[in-house]
Amino acid sequence: MRQPLTTTPGGQGRQGGALLVGQSGGATAVINASLAGIVSRARRSGVFSGVLGMRNGIEGVLKERFIDLTSMDEQLLERVRHTPSAALGTGRYKLGDDELDRVLEIMAAREVSALVYIGGNDSADTTWRIGARAQERGYDLRVAAVPKTIDNDLPEMDHCPGYGSLACYLANAVRDATYDSIASPHLHAVKFVEVMGRDAGWVAASGALGFGDDERDLEPLVLLPERPPVNAVSVLNAISADLERRDWAVVIVPETLRTAAGRHLGGDEPDYVDEFGHPYFPSTGAALTRLVSQGLGVRARYDKPGTAARMSISMASDVDLDEAYRLGDAAVERIVAGESGFITVLNRVSENPFRCEVGTVPVERIANRVRSLPDAFIRDDGMGITDAFRSWALPLLGSDPFPPYARLPGDGTLWPEETTIRTGP
Amino acid sequence: MRQPLTTTPGGQGRQGGALLVGQSGGATAVINASLAGIVSRARRSGVFSGVLGMRNGIEGVLKERFIDLTSMDEQLLERVRHTPSAALGTGRYKLGDDELDRVLEIMAAREVSALVYIGGNDSADTTWRIGARAQERGYDLRVAAVPKTIDNDLPEMDHCPGYGSLACYLANAVRDATYDSIASPHLHAVKFVEVMGRDAGWVAASGALGFGDDERDLEPLVLLPERPPVNAVSVLNAISADLERRDWAVVIVPETLRTAAGRHLGGDEPDYVDEFGHPYFPSTGAALTRLVSQGLGVRARYDKPGTAARMSISMASDVDLDEAYRLGDAAVERIVAGESGFITVLNRVSENPFRCEVGTVPVERIANRVRSLPDAFIRDDGMGITDAFRSWALPLLGSDPFPPYARLPGDGTLWPEETTIRTGP
Repeated sequence: MRQPLTTTPGGQGRQGGALLVGQSGGATAVINASLAGIVSRARRSGVFSGVLGMRNGIEGVLKERFIDLTSMDEQLLERVRHTPSAALGTGRYKLGDDELDRVLEIMAAREVSALVYIGGNDSADTTWRIGARAQERGYDLRVAAVPKTIDNDLPEMDHCPGYGSLACYLANAVRDATYDSIASPHLHAVKFVEVMGRDAGWVAASGALGFGDDERDLEPLVLLPERPPVNAVSVLNAISADLERRDWAVVIVPETLRTAAGRHLGGDEPDYVDEFGHPYFPSTGAALTRLVSQGLGVRARYDKPGTAARMSISMASDVDLDEAYRLGDAAVERIVAGESGFITVLNRVSENPFRCEVGTVPVERIANRVRSLPDAFIRDDGMGITDAFRSWALPLLGSDPFPPYARLPGDGTLWPEETTIRTGP
Repeated sequence: MRQPLTTTPGGQGRQGGALLVGQSGGATAVINASLAGIVSRARRSGVFSGVLGMRNGIEGVLKERFIDLTSMDEQLLERVRHTPSAALGTGRYKLGDDELDRVLEIMAAREVSALVYIGGNDSADTTWRIGARAQERGYDLRVAAVPKTIDNDLPEMDHCPGYGSLACYLANAVRDATYDSIASPHLHAVKFVEVMGRDAGWVAASGALGFGDDERDLEPLVLLPERPPVNAVSVLNAISADLERRDWAVVIVPETLRTAAGRHLGGDEPDYVDEFGHPYFPSTGAALTRLVSQGLGVRARYDKPGTAARMSISMASDVDLDEAYRLGDAAVERIVAGESGFITVLNRVSENPFRCEVGTVPVERIANRVRSLPDAFIRDDGMGITDAFRSWALPLLGSDPFPPYARLPGDGTLWPEETTIRTGP
């Protein structure tokens, strides 16, 4: 714990330092809400001499590309808060150990006394390494991370900002795709919805949340990395069973799904590998669509909602937007109070009514760890979600995530027994 | 013109006949609004002895699968009105000439005196053929079609129900994908958004509508069937120019795009051919993504919003929902008044304020004709939209289609000249 930062009577930062903020990883619908929380709290605190945004994440520091947010217009900040994407620009640059000193030199030249970095696992690692190196060098730098990932796979927190909004979008998209299938099973008997998400099934599972108590018979199959299919044939068998039961099948499939033997369903040749070593494989949805057409002889298609799913403000969760803001706000509050080396997290303190408090954990506990979907959230057959997951996840999707849909009763074989049409006089 | 239908003092249909309604082709966000308009008006008119829904389109008639809507709960009907998909079920069955008599026999057995068929080009053709055969046989059947297609390619009308809602969804999705690209051009320099739409570019063009006057520098490339690219290389050249200009490119591409030589960009082997002879080709987005990675050496990805784009009620246009209802309502009104053999259409009678009236044209004028995007709506280079298209299309997207987004000023190279950070006392 360091000294709290205070202001002098003149309102100048006693510390005389600037707060530097950055955004990293994939953009989301709510990452700018976190940015707004950080900038707003930093300015209100009155203890910082300025607020600097790094352009496109930590690479922007190395390139000395900054945006001065010190006197940014309040109304613009409020609009940024409700704009998806990352207003500062984002990136996935892997900072080399040999670059840490250069980053600190550049920050020292700008008299940066506090760093707040919004991002996921890799960003937490970067934040931790910068903080540790600063300490080694005796540079009085306070560092904090603010979580952001639609993947929802960061440990040590109830859930991650960005996930609720993505979940709301996907749950609606899958529900809509399902109502389409009910109406026209013969146009496309099988439909895949290919979703993002790397190593954990949170994203895929969220797509199954759109069905109310009177719609549970419509729930899709969900393929999950936590329960990898034995092989493509086992996927086809599950689809066959659904076709048998109700003429159609909707299957949510992560874009990088692997079989139990570790083979990628979309093919084992990555399209490319990013700088953190994450490989990106060909479309699982496309591969399975081909397999179904060939193997089952029925029409199939795949949707791939892609970017809009993690970026849509129109479908964003009000709960998510609020939490993202609070996590940014709290990070600066704690830095001002003297903390450093932490990440802000959401702790669920009440289930009903749903309520989360903001806490902190040491940032090094986040780096390089992934939180999988717990067993209790996965249906016994491994291809769907449980009521426990529904109860846990639904509050994150916001106050009113699903418009009410109606289905007509019966399936139409009502004539002549059940249909009475009066004839004229 | 036949006799108007009237009620007897007892309220029984003088005609003594039932109204039969069906839905055909791809489901949309607003086709149930048309259904609600038809059912509601038919019941209010008091002249029909019953209202029957055919299950899954005309094939449901052949299979004698009906749903009795005569005394369907009003609240349920109101909910159906705002439920996407096709509540009766839809289909694409191609009615053989030899099946026309069978259809008429089944309808006669149910004392059907009026047929209203909601659908696109193929459904208009089916409606016309049933009406013509009934006339030949002296069966007093009144027939009407109600337009429905996200493709917006039916002739003889200002625009088609379903298009405005789809356009709203896609315009937002492409805008979101673009803001993502601005924030992280180095993650995916090139992004394709693959959209539906068969032979005309209305759908693809709609995706470019999401940019306000202060966002015109962000407009995407749009590939259009009306201006087919010479070959894949000419597409890559246009993308290269965008990369040169602004580090990123977003490209809207129809799923079945062909080159000027008639070759499908996704490959010439159809995945399958439907019963109307429409072939379905492999993903153009996937093919172009590969080409860009190989040919330009930059990362690319594609989104494929798919089903949800034509089905989302959350993003549906209020104008579209209203028009779809009115077109259904008016079809029954005209039938009651004595008309037959028509399709209801929207005629734009005022540009500002935007206002459409419902009219009718003979249904045979619709069948087997396609309306392409006019030259005036296509940018000179053939890869974008014009202001004329914006003005024409924007009212269809509803009263408030785009949330306001903000961008930070400058691109960050402000230090040290333009950034002044006060140092402490």
